[in-house]
Amino acid sequence: MTDYGHTFPLWRAAAGDSWTAYTRHAFVAGLADGTLPREAFLGYLVQDYIFLLHFSRAWALAVTKTEHPDEMRWCSGVLRGLLEDEIALHIETCAREGLDEATLREAPERPENIAYTRYVLDAGHSGDFLDLLAALAPCVLGYGEIGARLAAAGGGGPYADWIGVYGGDNYQALCGETGALLDRAVARRLGDAPAQSPRWPALCHRFETATRLEIGFWDMGLHS
Amino acid sequence: MTDYGHTFPLWRAAAGDSWTAYTRHAFVAGLADGTLPREAFLGYLVQDYIFLLHFSRAWALAVTKTEHPDEMRWCSGVLRGLLEDEIALHIETCAREGLDEATLREAPERPENIAYTRYVLDAGHSGDFLDLLAALAPCVLGYGEIGARLAAAGGGGPYADWIGVYGGDNYQALCGETGALLDRAVARRLGDAPAQSPRWPALCHRFETATRLEIGFWDMGLHS
Amino acid sequence: MTDYGHTFPLWRAAAGDSWTAYTRHAFVAGLADGTLPREAFLGYLVQDYIFLLHFSRAWALAVTKTEHPDEMRWCSGVLRGLLEDEIALHIETCAREGLDEATLREAPERPENIAYTRYVLDAGHSGDFLDLLAALAPCVLGYGEIGARLAAAGGGGPYADWIGVYGGDNYQALCGETGALLDRAVARRLGDAPAQSPRWPALCHRFETATRLEIGFWDMGLHS
Amino acid sequence: MTDYGHTFPLWRAAAGDSWTAYTRHAFVAGLADGTLPREAFLGYLVQDYIFLLHFSRAWALAVTKTEHPDEMRWCSGVLRGLLEDEIALHIETCAREGLDEATLREAPERPENIAYTRYVLDAGHSGDFLDLLAALAPCVLGYGEIGARLAAAGGGGPYADWIGVYGGDNYQALCGETGALLDRAVARRLGDAPAQSPRWPALCHRFETATRLEIGFWDMGLHS
Repeated sequence: MTDYGHTFPLWRAAAGDSWTAYTRHAFVAGLADGTLPREAFLGYLVQDYIFLLHFSRAWALAVTKTEHPDEMRWCSGVLRGLLEDEIALHIETCAREGLDEATLREAPERPENIAYTRYVLDAGHSGDFLDLLAALAPCVLGYGEIGARLAAAGGGGPYADWIGVYGGDNYQALCGETGALLDRAVARRLGDAPAQSPRWPALCHRFETATRLEIGFWDMGLHS
Repeated sequence: MTDYGHTFPLWRAAAGDSWTAYTRHAFVAGLADGTLPREAFLGYLVQDYIFLLHFSRAWALAVTKTEHPDEMRWCSGVLRGLLEDEIALHIETCAREGLDEATLREAPERPENIAYTRYVLDAGHSGDFLDLLAALAPCVLGYGEIGARLAAAGGGGPYADWIGVYGGDNYQALCGETGALLDRAVARRLGDAPAQSPRWPALCHRFETATRLEIGFWDMGLHS
Repeated sequence: MTDYGHTFPLWRAAAGDSWTAYTRHAFVAGLADGTLPREAFLGYLVQDYIFLLHFSRAWALAVTKTEHPDEMRWCSGVLRGLLEDEIALHIETCAREGLDEATLREAPERPENIAYTRYVLDAGHSGDFLDLLAALAPCVLGYGEIGARLAAAGGGGPYADWIGVYGGDNYQALCGETGALLDRAVARRLGDAPAQSPRWPALCHRFETATRLEIGFWDMGLHS
Repeated sequence: MTDYGHTFPLWRAAAGDSWTAYTRHAFVAGLADGTLPREAFLGYLVQDYIFLLHFSRAWALAVTKTEHPDEMRWCSGVLRGLLEDEIALHIETCAREGLDEATLREAPERPENIAYTRYVLDAGHSGDFLDLLAALAPCVLGYGEIGARLAAAGGGGPYADWIGVYGGDNYQALCGETGALLDRAVARRLGDAPAQSPRWPALCHRFETATRLEIGFWDMGLHS
């Protein structure tokens, strides 16, 4: 199961059709059955490289938004993983396709990309640790859900590597731990009945807005 | 003339075709000759109401990024004008068209809108006072330039009110003072030959990216 | 009465002896009975000028931490009052004592001053709108309480002007409105029983820490 | 030599007597000759534990203030070292002295401690990457300078462990790399003649203010 704790399924349910539109997007279907044009995938990878730099900045921001050592360590660990492993993987994959890092760095950042990462960063700057987590969650856990589903369905074809990363044990474990961090962070700040907190609708709205911006990111990927 | 000081014309020139695409956009042409569909204009006003709230947050952020009392006072004055006058004008205009403030507040924020304001806010959070001004300038001064041009060309028709605001003496004076603030802020931080500072290309890039996001905002306006 | 709403008296009670040590400090007693050495008062005014610049930055930060127009307008109004009126009053008072603005601007900022304002700013950056208000409240409302008490006790002597400002109708009205803003902001985010929220102890701790830093500010004033 | 690159010696020279007062403080002399009372050392360690949490937040903030992958990776590496190694070392050292982590976490944060870390964080929030580095440098590189000097002078006695950490090869290498990062960051933003940039005095002032706050931290240590 890809529920990753208690909070995520609640936010996912509140996002309704947006969540389906994101996780069942045509781009995802194309990864699953191998029909996604290579050009679209490469365009996506280039933007995703830029995305990961700013997404790393957002996880670093999370460290600044808490004084709990366990939360600091967890966010710092995710940051390290993004900067050392995930970005390196993108550079390597792109290199195999003939795109070097200089090309990645010079690519113009697309508006759909800007919208998503800067929204997440502003969620952190304007709100507290929870507001930031609500904006970070759709990407981290949504990719986990997509990866697990595509892997369970076979996971072969030209995009087997991509599916292998996000459907693989390492990434699934990271999602499980992120879901647990999220549950603890929510309990600490909103108590045992978080859905009754007056802040709950705003957190659901954060999650849903970030989900809508993920849809825009796939749309951009299809048309690049 | 709508040069508003020394810095703005340099950044505008560096933005090249993007600047033209923004200030000569089909949406602007439709305001000028009155052919813009009313529906598109109202859709734009609704999004612009949300825009102004976040743009106000960005001018407030500017106050936090300086210790010079003159810069603090100037940014605080712009903030006050946005919150007290410009947003009030939007509410009033929308009310005349049958859209009350509750409708404005419940309208979903479009991705093109999110992209722009959150980019500006992140420019401020990640950089210094100048980085933020470079991202704020295309909106403030670009509307001044557009307003002045449309007013000089007659400024009548169904959008005479809009043209009257941005082409009017008050807004033009605000642009002149903003340009002067910008020049002083640049001289303070980059000296007498700012274009030779290693930071110059990054500032031009900030200005140009914000300009591209303005184009996206007009595109959104045309299709709403 | 100087309760300024519902939330303030609760936080004040939670701060316990720290609140008394702040509002009944020897510096305050010296203002009340006129025994405070003029030199100490002038040293305090110089630091308070610097304080007000950074305190203004903190109120500007508050504007960036909300999307509710009423909260934005209120914080922007306080910001305007600080920058236009309160700082101007300091400059004027200091000028009468032979200290010009250049002297004020060149004075080294004392560690006790740095501790207070930067703590408030960090409360805002690391937390949400409420965390920031909890750090802002002891200064705004504590000065109101002190001013009202000293005015009620006569308010004459060499420091009658100072007492007249903070005990006067304008400042007392500002405190009443700030207390009301605070109550609304708390209700919006924590609901009807805020003291049962898991966040409540952290908010009380913010308020108490800022109160302790106010004590340090008076100590600094006595010894300058 | 403990110059750690080009920028640090310039800022150190500009800090003048403050630098000497910090690095030759009575607390440091007591560490060197073993006369520092154990009680003072333990009081210092408790505050330093809290310090390291907020100092980690400041290095995390640095990651959010750059888009250069090399700078992001470096700051993320320092953050990891602080959270995983240096804080762990403090917990371990304190445990040997009978202070468990719960005691550390409950200790009230002293105003001198608050002043320092919140000043550094505000330098980052209000300015750019360089403003933040200028406020971070006195601690990182000053401890390196002190450690190297004490180790060269023998480094024995009751505080041999402390001297061994900061005078040791690992920490000295970290200082060398931090100095190199700083030089590159300065060159990128201020060019080949940074001391002629109009921003230089403000950066020197940041460094010197942070140095003064380090003196306050040692003073606090002596009296705890």
